[in-house]
Amino acid sequence: MNKDFTVTPWEISGKVDYDKLIKQFGTQKIDTSLLNRIKKHTKELHPYLTRNIFFCHRDLNWLLDEYEKNNKFFLYTGRAPSGKIHIGHLVPWIFTRWLQEKFKVDLWFQFPDEEKFLFKDDLTLEDTNKYLYENALDVIALGFNPKNTKFLIDTVHANLMYKEAVKVAKKITFSTTKASFGFTNETNIGAIFYTSMQAVPAFLPSVLKGKNIPCLIPLGVDQDPHFRISRDVIPKLGYYKPAIIHCKFLPPLTGPEGKMSSSIEESAIFTIDSPEIVEKKIKKYAFSGGQPTIEEHRKKGGNPDIDVSYQWLRYFEYDDKKLKNIYNDYTSGKLLTSELKQILIEKLNKFLKNHQKSREKAKKSVDKFIYTP
Amino acid sequence: MNKDFTVTPWEISGKVDYDKLIKQFGTQKIDTSLLNRIKKHTKELHPYLTRNIFFCHRDLNWLLDEYEKNNKFFLYTGRAPSGKIHIGHLVPWIFTRWLQEKFKVDLWFQFPDEEKFLFKDDLTLEDTNKYLYENALDVIALGFNPKNTKFLIDTVHANLMYKEAVKVAKKITFSTTKASFGFTNETNIGAIFYTSMQAVPAFLPSVLKGKNIPCLIPLGVDQDPHFRISRDVIPKLGYYKPAIIHCKFLPPLTGPEGKMSSSIEESAIFTIDSPEIVEKKIKKYAFSGGQPTIEEHRKKGGNPDIDVSYQWLRYFEYDDKKLKNIYNDYTSGKLLTSELKQILIEKLNKFLKNHQKSREKAKKSVDKFIYTP
Repeated sequence: MNKDFTVTPWEISGKVDYDKLIKQFGTQKIDTSLLNRIKKHTKELHPYLTRNIFFCHRDLNWLLDEYEKNNKFFLYTGRAPSGKIHIGHLVPWIFTRWLQEKFKVDLWFQFPDEEKFLFKDDLTLEDTNKYLYENALDVIALGFNPKNTKFLIDTVHANLMYKEAVKVAKKITFSTTKASFGFTNETNIGAIFYTSMQAVPAFLPSVLKGKNIPCLIPLGVDQDPHFRISRDVIPKLGYYKPAIIHCKFLPPLTGPEGKMSSSIEESAIFTIDSPEIVEKKIKKYAFSGGQPTIEEHRKKGGNPDIDVSYQWLRYFEYDDKKLKNIYNDYTSGKLLTSELKQILIEKLNKFLKNHQKSREKAKKSVDKFIYTP
Repeated sequence: MNKDFTVTPWEISGKVDYDKLIKQFGTQKIDTSLLNRIKKHTKELHPYLTRNIFFCHRDLNWLLDEYEKNNKFFLYTGRAPSGKIHIGHLVPWIFTRWLQEKFKVDLWFQFPDEEKFLFKDDLTLEDTNKYLYENALDVIALGFNPKNTKFLIDTVHANLMYKEAVKVAKKITFSTTKASFGFTNETNIGAIFYTSMQAVPAFLPSVLKGKNIPCLIPLGVDQDPHFRISRDVIPKLGYYKPAIIHCKFLPPLTGPEGKMSSSIEESAIFTIDSPEIVEKKIKKYAFSGGQPTIEEHRKKGGNPDIDVSYQWLRYFEYDDKKLKNIYNDYTSGKLLTSELKQILIEKLNKFLKNHQKSREKAKKSVDKFIYTP
């Protein structure tokens, strides 16, 4: 077990070595041949694929085998409501939307509104409910197609979900959850049970349609432990093992280690931040890979690999040529940190302006997205 | 901890010493002054009270305080569907019906259709669902008033229940369930969570009506561990600690130890048994307190305290005088075991004839009993 970094559904710390993580978790690298195989169907590749942001997977080749046999899959991802949405949260969803569009498939989006309540002492269900609505607006704002997007809310859809969850739960011992999540005897019994609820959307569409449908889960790699367990259990219930495609974390504004966090204001840009706040936060907090003085920077150049502004542009500047120029100019010293920050500020504010407009519009359509049997 | 007998929600063994159990569990004996207090409201006392079959309680005096202040309570009891109903199951329900009638209060009857599925390896949810319907017929047949009786079915009413259950679950650690139920690291996580669902009906009516309503739970004393935990938790959620009234077990046909079991055919009379089967089972299996020969019996008399036929008559012959005569005649040797058995056979078959008729009629009214919000 590597001690330089930690990745669990509840903690990300240290500088994550994603190659080591692949070995630790036992996932498969996304290689060129797999990228080419995806491209056969999608015509083009999303920058999150070519830039290795979605970097590993489980059973994606099997999923494509099925797809090529006309056995379409559905997508499943989600959000545990607990706070404001920051731009790091958007990464897997932006990619999920792209997959939905390119493969023309259904998306089941889970809002486990009990999860954070069970894992955080101070949070009430009233809190998570407030965030649920706010978070749903951000999801809708990304442009998901309401015709094939279905929101599942654990406490609202419990009639559908609890019955399936107990089938999962019967096949998971406390020992297994201890090993996967680090639970102790002092963990509450709701938290212990919870992973069963997270497993359900991976096969619920098969239950509802009365036939076995493959499932693909795009997610942040920290959520993988939930599905390591449920991938063992779901086939025992007679359904396909869900395939998974994992992404890296957008680094926090303050440095290349760990994961952006809603509870650390200076680490994150929120989707509802004003242009002024975005500018202020980036100018004040964005960790720089530049040199201490302009003279030194001009001479030695900056290091984009640790520079958060550059790293963020990898997620938000989709134009490969532009990104390459920025990389070269920063490395050569032609581009100063302040200039690089300005590029990011403009890019993000343009993105957020659109997002906030869509987010306002979304208020009218939340009901359309909530699954009704 | 007494080792001569064991009483948990999943195991009853040995000859239960109910006085010791009161000490072990920390409940209160039902004494004459409490009986008189109940009688003030009910005018008469049910034989299950005068015969000490309902023998102990928690907070019944508080409940009556509230009742006398015009703060009416509701009743909550239930049945985990898993097999045919035997006459032992009926005991707490017969008494619950009496309480419902005498105090003119609502009854919430829970069918936790996931419980036995989670605790028994071989049982499927399809099985418990089949039993759920069959078991509901037996409950209805006892004459509950459909106007103030509401069935809660865990998988059907999960939309109402799961949200409340996670509030309970957040306040119970695995350690607590280990201590109360003897769980181990190999217990499945659904079984670990389950007690939270059993707690919900004790305060759900308060949630639904938006005001705090006292709750009285009549139950077999083996279910007490669930409520020892939930009585700690429920006040933390802002609701009254439920009061409980506990009954003893109808002994199995085969002897005075343990509890009647659906899975041991010869131990039980089922509500759907024919008169011939009832006669055959009692003649063949009913444990006798009589003497080995008629001569010896006439001389020494039988022992009604260990004689199952007599013990059962304490539950089904409500006429105190008749019961006393039987007791005296059996003790004196005037009444032979075969004659005592014949009295029981006739009593039970008369009861079951009525029950089976009501059970048939109940098929038309199941839907009326299922709670709709």
